[in-house]
Amino acid sequence: MRDVPSEVIRIQEVGMRDGLQSAGQFVETADKIQLLNQLSKTGLSKIEVTSFVSPKAVPLLADAEAVLDAIERVPGVIYSALIPNIRGLERALAVDLDEVNVVMSVSNAHNMANLRMTCDDSLDQFREICTNRGSLSVNGTLATAFGCPFVGSVDPSMVLEWAKRYLDVGIDSLTLADTVGTATPHQIFGLCKAIVDELPEIEITLHLHNTRGLGIANALAGIDAGIRHLDASIGGIGGCPYAPGATGNVCTEDLVHALIFDGYRCDVHLDALFEIALQLEGILCNPLPGLVRQAGTKLTTHPMSDDLRCRLGIP
Amino acid sequence: MRDVPSEVIRIQEVGMRDGLQSAGQFVETADKIQLLNQLSKTGLSKIEVTSFVSPKAVPLLADAEAVLDAIERVPGVIYSALIPNIRGLERALAVDLDEVNVVMSVSNAHNMANLRMTCDDSLDQFREICTNRGSLSVNGTLATAFGCPFVGSVDPSMVLEWAKRYLDVGIDSLTLADTVGTATPHQIFGLCKAIVDELPEIEITLHLHNTRGLGIANALAGIDAGIRHLDASIGGIGGCPYAPGATGNVCTEDLVHALIFDGYRCDVHLDALFEIALQLEGILCNPLPGLVRQAGTKLTTHPMSDDLRCRLGIP
Repeated sequence: MRDVPSEVIRIQEVGMRDGLQSAGQFVETADKIQLLNQLSKTGLSKIEVTSFVSPKAVPLLADAEAVLDAIERVPGVIYSALIPNIRGLERALAVDLDEVNVVMSVSNAHNMANLRMTCDDSLDQFREICTNRGSLSVNGTLATAFGCPFVGSVDPSMVLEWAKRYLDVGIDSLTLADTVGTATPHQIFGLCKAIVDELPEIEITLHLHNTRGLGIANALAGIDAGIRHLDASIGGIGGCPYAPGATGNVCTEDLVHALIFDGYRCDVHLDALFEIALQLEGILCNPLPGLVRQAGTKLTTHPMSDDLRCRLGIP
Repeated sequence: MRDVPSEVIRIQEVGMRDGLQSAGQFVETADKIQLLNQLSKTGLSKIEVTSFVSPKAVPLLADAEAVLDAIERVPGVIYSALIPNIRGLERALAVDLDEVNVVMSVSNAHNMANLRMTCDDSLDQFREICTNRGSLSVNGTLATAFGCPFVGSVDPSMVLEWAKRYLDVGIDSLTLADTVGTATPHQIFGLCKAIVDELPEIEITLHLHNTRGLGIANALAGIDAGIRHLDASIGGIGGCPYAPGATGNVCTEDLVHALIFDGYRCDVHLDALFEIALQLEGILCNPLPGLVRQAGTKLTTHPMSDDLRCRLGIP
């Protein structure tokens, strides 16, 4: 069985971006701000607040500036936003932000479908972004690192190659994304271990989806390979346009619950997450995929009936 | 990372018993027979067909004899039924069956709530059942082996103790059940390894629920500890009366998918399972919790649009 690392496992919230961008309805700016202010106080180490994509492309996040202007900052929490291009960087530089997250797919087909440019063109943009970042950190996400919805399997050596190119253009940290929830634990372990071993100096995040029920199993395999940063989404919101009906990102509270009760160090307040997920469910008017909030934690017990107490001789 | 064992992992279907007993509606006998006949042909190694509990207690399985009289047997598949007591054994002896499954909880409180007798009284019954079994095999299930909904944690040494008592009264194989879906991977590994090491001669099944999203992670931890037999439920049906709204047993097709694509030997036909789960969903008129059937397998790809093909220069 795996050893439990002594380091704290850092949980990074992406639901307000990856979840709300595909929520199917606009969440009011005031609601976003309230949710983000609460998330900031739960012990999460990073929050992807929003995305500086074109409001025409993603109208559900058209209020990026208004949200970032209003939220309260909690010291120690890294506030990040996704940017698709140099125009996004300009918007990011005009607000109070710690980090921008740039994304490209390892699969050229997916990059073309998602961003309408080749992987090489994406990298050229990221070079320009890194040059003009000011004081912003740049996180580079490699999407479809474990599989592509169009071409299927992805060569792990290609992922390592792109990770090195990312470093060459100047990114500060790296995210490996299982964009369509296709990874399996041994695959996660193999690729993460190879990249951790090859690039020991860079902080690596694993971004997982629970599309096929393997979200938490994959997170544990990633930790076993040396990963200490995990993305997750409150309530398990999010999804993938190529897998209709499937669940979304690995659920923050389910992941935190699994880590805490399986003996890992994870300094996130579970009860606070349940409270936020409940509010989010009310806002979205839809049951969220997260399971632990429905079932209660591992410690949940149920009162015995009077009849049972009597049979057991308990007064 | 864990080694993959060379042995085949055996999948045992419990949905027709553990799932349908709490389905909230009676599934017609003809539908049960049709589902079971199809399940028999998928490569599953054992099928828990029904339960010989009192029809008053579990009316949804009141047709146990009719189902067992009608289903076709596939050579190599073990046909099992749950029996709660000696009366259940009498009914089981009157039909064509390979195995009876007896159940008691490690937790006295849960045993009293579920079976209205003490653990010691349950064991006395099992002794009588083993004596009068005829040619039937007897599988002994230890429920609440990883936690009890009333008293919480369960001492692993108690589970080992009860496993030995089971062997003393003559059971042939053992099931460790995470009845309320409260187990975590290290807990699963620890207890399974202790029992596999202490009782190497006995076949052990792990019976898991996905109540808190850990079903597959726990299954993999069990395999790592030497477990080669896993219960699962088609579509993920089932549940727990003490965790309303929570998902049920670990889903057969999600588990088989995880094993096959993570490199384990598991000779079950995934497409056939999808087909059966689809029929079951139609019969129950409710979406089932299984995820892979909605998302497609790891190998699923989606056609590129004409626009994307054009951009990629693909004719």
